[in-house]
Amino acid sequence: MTENSVMLHESERIDDLLSHDLKIIQSDEVFSFSMDAVLLARFASVPKRGRVLDLCTGNGVVPILLTTRTQANLEAIEIQPRLADMARRSVQLNGLGESITIHEGDLRELVKVTGHAAYDAITVNPPYMPLNGSDLKMNTHQAMARHEVGCTLEEVIQACSRLLRNGGKVSMVHRPQRIAEIISLMREYKLEPKRIRMVHPRSHLEANMVLIEASKDGKPEVRMLPPLIVYNEEGTYCEEIMDIYYGSQHKPHPVEGGL
Amino acid sequence: MTENSVMLHESERIDDLLSHDLKIIQSDEVFSFSMDAVLLARFASVPKRGRVLDLCTGNGVVPILLTTRTQANLEAIEIQPRLADMARRSVQLNGLGESITIHEGDLRELVKVTGHAAYDAITVNPPYMPLNGSDLKMNTHQAMARHEVGCTLEEVIQACSRLLRNGGKVSMVHRPQRIAEIISLMREYKLEPKRIRMVHPRSHLEANMVLIEASKDGKPEVRMLPPLIVYNEEGTYCEEIMDIYYGSQHKPHPVEGGL
Repeated sequence: MTENSVMLHESERIDDLLSHDLKIIQSDEVFSFSMDAVLLARFASVPKRGRVLDLCTGNGVVPILLTTRTQANLEAIEIQPRLADMARRSVQLNGLGESITIHEGDLRELVKVTGHAAYDAITVNPPYMPLNGSDLKMNTHQAMARHEVGCTLEEVIQACSRLLRNGGKVSMVHRPQRIAEIISLMREYKLEPKRIRMVHPRSHLEANMVLIEASKDGKPEVRMLPPLIVYNEEGTYCEEIMDIYYGSQHKPHPVEGGL
Repeated sequence: MTENSVMLHESERIDDLLSHDLKIIQSDEVFSFSMDAVLLARFASVPKRGRVLDLCTGNGVVPILLTTRTQANLEAIEIQPRLADMARRSVQLNGLGESITIHEGDLRELVKVTGHAAYDAITVNPPYMPLNGSDLKMNTHQAMARHEVGCTLEEVIQACSRLLRNGGKVSMVHRPQRIAEIISLMREYKLEPKRIRMVHPRSHLEANMVLIEASKDGKPEVRMLPPLIVYNEEGTYCEEIMDIYYGSQHKPHPVEGGL
């Protein structure tokens, strides 16, 4: 078995990861990544070097994509053993074992291991839905990835605040419905929102995703980036989405930094 | 002198107010309205009847425009006597004395007169810039309208919370730079953001205006409306802006309610 061949379990498949010659292990029954993670990996401001952490990493799609943008030491944490194992095998599959470390554990406990302010940047694609007695018909893996079963939004934000050095940046993707809670919780925990980008399925529709970056102990001043529109009027991907998914020879993005 | 003729002071002029057969007294030296106020008057959810208040009303442009959308009793408050007088004369000019009452005074003191929870809806286009020692080269009228000379953002939001009945709505226009402060202050004062709309000068540029509506004691759930783009690629107003400014035979807006 070469370094880049891995075991696949039942229901798992290997997918190509966009234009980057990367691959990822997915499973419709357990976990597969969505556009949210891809946009987060592109939006986040990450330092060229240093220590970067991805919370709620699932199958590790965000740190794997981040290897195309930074030479930082990438770490990721996932509470579900089944998913942490998938993430580790995807790292191995791409030969990225020296760049990415997958921790299996509870993000609320991580600070006890690493100490405070250990990271230069954090990315997080947390469960979107609060646990409020709505019926959870999905299996446990999916339920934990989508609902706040394991930890609440406040616990995620508190963990980011503790783990991030002063001036360090946390980038989150979430649902616009919860942006008011996200912003007030971030500010409560000394994470000052600095860049926000709304993602709209079409230009005349409400946003269904929000990308938000906050700076630890930053000054209050938000840049509200141009809207990211997913589909054009013909129902095909807009140029920027095509560029993100498939690469391009297009002109550089009008927005500096990430997205 | 008929009901609809008024005195004009030096530097003042009478402008047509868009498509509505309304007029307004303006002065480049003292106060003239901008697109912000027009968009606020269109964005705000206002009840058909009841009691609606406009804070920081300037020359009264928002309540005058609101007469085209509601039969509520409209009140407005302005701290600067010179502007409150302009607003009163504009109300008189349009024969709207029975619909609109202009108060001259400090919005922080209004609750002492009206009591708590007196209003069904509030609109506000507050001064945008915090007072932080930057040189104020403008004259006093303009400085007070643009900088937090008279009251801070927190005082405006606190006043809204006190003046609004439970379930009542406050609609604000402001700069995106301050959206994080606005959202966390609103939530601190029990005003839950419910609808947000970003205004971008062009589709590829950052937003330069934000419209935000909050509900007193509402549940946390935000609708992030489609972006409002001001200019199209040809550099002329987009259809929706044309419609707002000049009226139209266009199809109905895709967004329910106001904007």
